[in-house]
Amino acid sequence: MKALVFQGPGQIAWQDVPDPVVKGADDVVIRVDVVTICGTDLHVIKGDVPEVTPGRVLGHEAVGTVVEAGAGVRTVRPGDRVLISCISACGRCRFCREGHYGQCRGGGGWVLGHTVDGTQAEYVRVPFADLSVHPLPASVDSHDGVLLADIFPTAYEVGVLNGGVRPGDTVVVVGAGPIGLAAIIGAGLYSPGRIIAVDLAESRLAAARSLGADATAGAAEEPGQLVDDLTEGLGADVVIEAVGVPEAFEMCTRMVRPGGRVANIGVHGRPATLHLEDLWSKDITITTGLVDTYSTPMLLGMLAADRLPSSSLITHRFELGQMEEAYDVFSRAADTGALKVVLGGPQHNEIIAPAQP
Amino acid sequence: MKALVFQGPGQIAWQDVPDPVVKGADDVVIRVDVVTICGTDLHVIKGDVPEVTPGRVLGHEAVGTVVEAGAGVRTVRPGDRVLISCISACGRCRFCREGHYGQCRGGGGWVLGHTVDGTQAEYVRVPFADLSVHPLPASVDSHDGVLLADIFPTAYEVGVLNGGVRPGDTVVVVGAGPIGLAAIIGAGLYSPGRIIAVDLAESRLAAARSLGADATAGAAEEPGQLVDDLTEGLGADVVIEAVGVPEAFEMCTRMVRPGGRVANIGVHGRPATLHLEDLWSKDITITTGLVDTYSTPMLLGMLAADRLPSSSLITHRFELGQMEEAYDVFSRAADTGALKVVLGGPQHNEIIAPAQP
Repeated sequence: MKALVFQGPGQIAWQDVPDPVVKGADDVVIRVDVVTICGTDLHVIKGDVPEVTPGRVLGHEAVGTVVEAGAGVRTVRPGDRVLISCISACGRCRFCREGHYGQCRGGGGWVLGHTVDGTQAEYVRVPFADLSVHPLPASVDSHDGVLLADIFPTAYEVGVLNGGVRPGDTVVVVGAGPIGLAAIIGAGLYSPGRIIAVDLAESRLAAARSLGADATAGAAEEPGQLVDDLTEGLGADVVIEAVGVPEAFEMCTRMVRPGGRVANIGVHGRPATLHLEDLWSKDITITTGLVDTYSTPMLLGMLAADRLPSSSLITHRFELGQMEEAYDVFSRAADTGALKVVLGGPQHNEIIAPAQP
Repeated sequence: MKALVFQGPGQIAWQDVPDPVVKGADDVVIRVDVVTICGTDLHVIKGDVPEVTPGRVLGHEAVGTVVEAGAGVRTVRPGDRVLISCISACGRCRFCREGHYGQCRGGGGWVLGHTVDGTQAEYVRVPFADLSVHPLPASVDSHDGVLLADIFPTAYEVGVLNGGVRPGDTVVVVGAGPIGLAAIIGAGLYSPGRIIAVDLAESRLAAARSLGADATAGAAEEPGQLVDDLTEGLGADVVIEAVGVPEAFEMCTRMVRPGGRVANIGVHGRPATLHLEDLWSKDITITTGLVDTYSTPMLLGMLAADRLPSSSLITHRFELGQMEEAYDVFSRAADTGALKVVLGGPQHNEIIAPAQP
C-alpha cells in the first residue's frame, strides 16, 4: 500500500510500505476513506517528538472501513464505517478505568502515528479496536466525522470542560486555528455570555465570528484591554489557550478574573512564566490535558443531529494520493489560509463488500 | 489602648493608639482575648505588602469578646465570645454571593491588619460583623479556637479542598510550617493512602509525623525520588505547596502524577517557571487561592467535637503585652522552633459583663 512515511526531521514521503495485518485479537485493520492532518504532525516532522522514529507512518485521525477484525473484537466488524479516534485505549489500566484514556498505561493513549503506524495511509491497523474506533451513524458524512477524531473532543474536553464554561460566562479563546475554532463551537453549547477570540490572522478571526465569537482582538488590538472593557475590569471567567507558546499562555493568566479558569490546550515546547506573585491569592485554576475522547460518542450524536458544524473548519480537500501537496498547504497556513485539510472521500466505501450478518 | 503598630519597613512598636469605635451599623468592637501572628504579618513588616501604610495596627487573627455592636448586627451581641476571621465579608457583592468571601468587592476580603486596623491590639473594630466573626462554642478553648481564624480554613480550603484529596490518595505537603501541618491534619480527614511531608527542618518533620505524615523527606533526601519510590514512579495524586517560593512550587509540579492536582497555598513574591513542555499533556490541575473561610463553621464544629488538634501547632504562649517579644520569637522560627505563637488568655473574659437578654 501507499503511506506517508516520516523519514527524519523535515522529510516525509508518500511511498510503498507493507500492508498492515491484524496482530492481536483486539486489532482491526481499516481501509482509510478520509484522513486529515494535525498540527501535531507538523511538530513530529520538525523533530519535536523524539519517540517518532524514521520509517513511522504518520497520522492519528481518519474515517475508514473495517476490512479485518481480530477474534476478540466485539463492537465492529468488517464492512463497518468507523471513526478512528486519535486515542487508543486498553480499557484495563487504572487510567482507562477512570475514563482517562489519553493517559492509558496499557499500550494505548496517543499511539497512532506516534509509537505505531498511523492513519495517513491506505490501510491502518488499530489496536484495542473496541475502545479506539466508533461506528459512524449513517447520517454522518465522513468529512464531517473525521474532525471528531481529534480536534473536536480535544477542544471540548481539554478546553471547554476543563475550563468549566457555564451559562453567562465571558470566555476568551486565545488562538483561532482549528482547535480554537472548535473550542468556540464547543463553548457555544453552554450559552456563554460572550466569546472573545484572539488571533493575529484576520481570516481566522472572521471564521471565529462566523462560528459564534461575539468580539475579536487581532494584531492591532490589545486583547487584555478588550477583556477589561467588556468585563468592567474584572477579567474573563474562562480563558482557553489554543496556541502553544509561552506568550499566549501568559496572556491567558493575565486575562482571567479572580476565581476564573485557564484551560491550556496548546502543545508547548518551552516553559512559561507563571506569575504567582500576582496569582497566588486570585483563586485561579489552571488545567492542562491530553484528550481522553470520552466525549466522542456524545459529539457524534450532536453531529448526527446536525448540531455541530464540524465541516465548517475544512478549507481544502484533496485525493488521498495528494498527501504531500496537502501537507504543503497545511504547513503554510499563514499563506494559504488553511484550517483543516482533508484527503480522500466516501466513494471508497463502494468497493468494500458489506459483512455478512 | 495598646496596639502593635507598623511604622514602616522593619519597624513595629507596641504603643498607645486611640480606642476603636463602632463606625457603621454592621460593625462590632471586640476586646481581644487571644491573638496570634501570621507569616503574612512578617511579609507586611518587610514591606512586601505596599497597601499597608505606616500607622496601621497589624494582625488578622483573634478570639475576643464583643463590647459594642452596631444597630444592624444580628448574630452577636456584647458579651459574646467570638472568633475573628481573617476574612471579612460584605455578603452583598457577586463574590460573596458565591461564597468567595476572600475575593469580596464590597469592602471586605482580607482587610484587618491590611487596609483597616487589625487584631494585634487590646481592642479591634471588625466591619461586616455578621459574616466576619463566629460565636465560639462554650467547649472551645480560646487558644484552640484562634488557630481557626486563618491557618486551618486556609490549609483546608486552599490546600485540601482545592487539591481534591480523596480516600487512598498519595498526598505530598511541601513545607511543614503551621500551614503545611494544618494541611496534613486537614488531608487526614479524607483518609488518604499516605501523606508525605517535605521540609528542610527536622523539627517540623517530626511535628508532621506526629500529626499524620506517613513519610518525610528532609534536607538530606530527594523528595521526588521518595515519591517515585512510594508510587511506582507514577507521582502523587495531590501536591500541596505551603512554602511560597518558586523552587518549592516547581518541585510540586515535578512530583504530581498524570491527572493529579497541585494546590498552591504559599504566598509568593516572585514568578515561577511552569514547565508546560512537560505538563501540557499530563492532565494537571493547578490551583491558587486566598481563603474564603466558608469552612470555618464546620471546622469549629470539628474542634468542639475534639476532632481537630489545632492547639498542637502552638509552641509559644505570651501575655498580650509581650507582642514585640512574640514577634521576635516567631520571626526567628528556624532558631526558636516556633510554629504558632499565641498571646493573651481567656482570663480576660472575666472582666466583661455578659449582655442582658
